[in-house]
Amino acid sequence: MEIKVLKNVLDKNKDQAEENRNLLDEHNVKMLNFISSPGAGKTSLLEQTIPELQKTMKVAVIEGDAYTSRDAERLQKFGIPIVQINTEGACHLDSNSIRNAFRQLDLQSLDVILVENVGNLICPTGFDLGEGYCIAVLSTTEGDDKPSKYPMLFRKAKAVVLNKMDLLSYTSFEKDNFVKDIYELNPQVQLFETSATQGTGTGEWNTWLNRMLSV
Amino acid sequence: MEIKVLKNVLDKNKDQAEENRNLLDEHNVKMLNFISSPGAGKTSLLEQTIPELQKTMKVAVIEGDAYTSRDAERLQKFGIPIVQINTEGACHLDSNSIRNAFRQLDLQSLDVILVENVGNLICPTGFDLGEGYCIAVLSTTEGDDKPSKYPMLFRKAKAVVLNKMDLLSYTSFEKDNFVKDIYELNPQVQLFETSATQGTGTGEWNTWLNRMLSV
Repeated sequence: MEIKVLKNVLDKNKDQAEENRNLLDEHNVKMLNFISSPGAGKTSLLEQTIPELQKTMKVAVIEGDAYTSRDAERLQKFGIPIVQINTEGACHLDSNSIRNAFRQLDLQSLDVILVENVGNLICPTGFDLGEGYCIAVLSTTEGDDKPSKYPMLFRKAKAVVLNKMDLLSYTSFEKDNFVKDIYELNPQVQLFETSATQGTGTGEWNTWLNRMLSV
Repeated sequence: MEIKVLKNVLDKNKDQAEENRNLLDEHNVKMLNFISSPGAGKTSLLEQTIPELQKTMKVAVIEGDAYTSRDAERLQKFGIPIVQINTEGACHLDSNSIRNAFRQLDLQSLDVILVENVGNLICPTGFDLGEGYCIAVLSTTEGDDKPSKYPMLFRKAKAVVLNKMDLLSYTSFEKDNFVKDIYELNPQVQLFETSATQGTGTGEWNTWLNRMLSV
């Protein structure tokens, strides 16, 4: 019984995700789904990403969080539309909550929507939101074993941003192991190394992102 | 329909958790449930905890992981019984998987079972395993906003171990904010500060744990 219901939930999510994707296509809006553990640096990366995108595009953000709007508050300084989704304890966003968020945005006026998912390496990976691409953020302080322990995310991601490179030398993180595991799971993935709080390494990431969003 | 099924799943989990608790009581075994984000340092903390407990108690470990047995392999050096539960992508352990793990352990011969849950700050908090206490591990590199963003875990925890104290000075983690938020959520919680990889700060933790497990 539980399995049947889970299948129903996932099927319903998939159908709504397709509708979201069509809606975005109609308005020529690109959407990215950022997934990471709690505290890997998604919001800090967005703080380095939004001002670069704003130079040439109209940007909005959808913020997912179990209870708070702390991340949304950090991004208010950019003067862009931000929709907060509080999942009330649920561990991921779904396509229906994204559809509701769209109703608070003027899609016609936008070029790109950045979705910051709830901090979690497992549950968000099962729920297509209708995004164009998923971006995985991992921090060096989490350990180099995370790709093999959480393969679903790293298989699904268009790009992996390895963040907190400024802390690498204080950890036992073996970058060679990490890179090898990542490419074994996903040979086509784009890999970036950043320190979002220091603003280092974000140039390559922003160049790639701009190019990908412009095609 | 989904809500009804979720209620059924949680009710079933609770019933099995009560059975697990009774079984542990019968055999005078204490069980602890360690919950954290991916990479916060649960396994490293266990590496500092097990040798201290072994001096006076018979210890076993139940390892939860979505796919791998990497953490279990790290603990094999202690020569204790270890049961690996692979959740096949599921985001938390439940009381039924713990009951199955018990079947691979000789409860009669044990004093304490340490359960390392799947790395996730949300889902594991909803599933009672029949443990005596839940221990939350948070690392300084995850940010001081985590208690308010993930309040369920910090309300439920008997103790919070703030790990990676050796990296504190390289982060923007404000310990005062963190401590204030923790005590607001849970005035009775025990708070420890450790660097499990450096083996610092673990003395107080081990002293408290030994005392708590001896009563």
